Amino acid sequence: MIDLYAFATPNSVKVPVMLEEVGAAYRLIKVNIRAGEQKTPEFLALNPNGKVPVIVDPQGPHGAPVTITESAAILIYLGEKFGRLIPADPVGRIRMFEWMFFHASGLGPAFGQSGYFQKLAPTPAPLAIERFSTEARRTLAVLDRRLRDAEYLAGEYSVADIVNFGWIWRREFAGVDFSETPNVARWYASLEQRPAVSRAIAKLSA
Amino acid sequence: MIDLYAFATPNSVKVPVMLEEVGAAYRLIKVNIRAGEQKTPEFLALNPNGKVPVIVDPQGPHGAPVTITESAAILIYLGEKFGRLIPADPVGRIRMFEWMFFHASGLGPAFGQSGYFQKLAPTPAPLAIERFSTEARRTLAVLDRRLRDAEYLAGEYSVADIVNFGWIWRREFAGVDFSETPNVARWYASLEQRPAVSRAIAKLSA
Ligand SMILES: N[C@@H](CCC(=O)N[C@@H](CS)C(=O)NCC(=O)O)C(=O)O
Ligand SMILES: N[C@@H](CCC(=O)N[C@@H](CS)C(=O)NCC(=O)O)C(=O)O
Repeated sequence: MIDLYAFATPNSVKVPVMLEEVGAAYRLIKVNIRAGEQKTPEFLALNPNGKVPVIVDPQGPHGAPVTITESAAILIYLGEKFGRLIPADPVGRIRMFEWMFFHASGLGPAFGQSGYFQKLAPTPAPLAIERFSTEARRTLAVLDRRLRDAEYLAGEYSVADIVNFGWIWRREFAGVDFSETPNVARWYASLEQRPAVSRAIAKLSA
Repeated sequence: MIDLYAFATPNSVKVPVMLEEVGAAYRLIKVNIRAGEQKTPEFLALNPNGKVPVIVDPQGPHGAPVTITESAAILIYLGEKFGRLIPADPVGRIRMFEWMFFHASGLGPAFGQSGYFQKLAPTPAPLAIERFSTEARRTLAVLDRRLRDAEYLAGEYSVADIVNFGWIWRREFAGVDFSETPNVARWYASLEQRPAVSRAIAKLSA
């Protein structure tokens, strides 16, 4: 039974989606980041970076328990462990890593900062709002262009789609919508319809 | 002969370091991002995200040419192609992906925005400067803690170290130094001494 430490957040959601997709048994342990539970000594012992999600797999490599942080790294681990959602085709594999790092380094931070400066910042910072909301829209347009040419990011459905689903599920926080990105809208709808995705969201939001 | 499109930037430098480490033949094509060369139609055809680095390998999968963006994805591709700098141990492999995504999503964006708001922003944004310089120092401290317990990020020297080298090589831009992170300082010095690293920096800065 894998322990999943998570909260209803864009980076967390990817992991229950993946666990549901591969049919792994897991226990969801909620970490209330609004109450600061991710900065307690107990949690920092699991993840010194003080962020969700984290998994603990009692049956890790060599049969020993393993603790893993970083949502995308967790997805690769689970994909390899269960032999699922990692393209076997070498070009698909290249695209999978590309779009995972695009989300981690580009779209994700842009969406996060766009939402922060629009919704949470203690004082207005117009320059930062402009910078990050423009970048959020620009990165979404880059994704749209890829999804014009391909049904899924790596060609076939893969962990790259689940990774990108995270922040796009929470796009309202970032102040973006699908009005100019019809291909992202189509792709998102097809993900939302997957039973694994609905089950994961229901459990995380409960 | 691999074509590398790059400039003397934190994300670019990782790729020539890797190419030098594996001993691949490559041609460096400089893309002057200060002159906007990353937004020309020719370059956008290579990378619709309009960023360096990019590689074109004429001998990609199935012997066909392949274009790859995202520095970390390029490193995984090269590591797998040449069978180098990817830990064979499954726990090392988990740590490798963890620290690559930590850099892509955490330390990298924090360093980048910290530098932008301190050095390039058209008007002062004290809230943003405070937010990102604090996050740059915090993420460097997280890395330091890992390097207190391990010589290299994945245990052994790997692509995870090369990825993290990028922004730490350009730490001055982000306004951070090693005064409170002795383990990062030790690790950085050991990377800097590698012949592949010096050769890559010399070529990129020429
Ligand atoms: N790159 C990390 C980011 C994780 C992350 O940013 N988690 C957020 C929630 S989406 C968090 O825990 N925030 C609380 C905090 O930073 O204090 C991942 O993908 O796992
Ligand atoms: N996540 C990307 C980021 C690439 C990136 O940010 N490149 C910068 C230079 S370090 C760039 O091309 N900036 C020019 C621009 O954004 O216009 C990677 O690691 O390759």
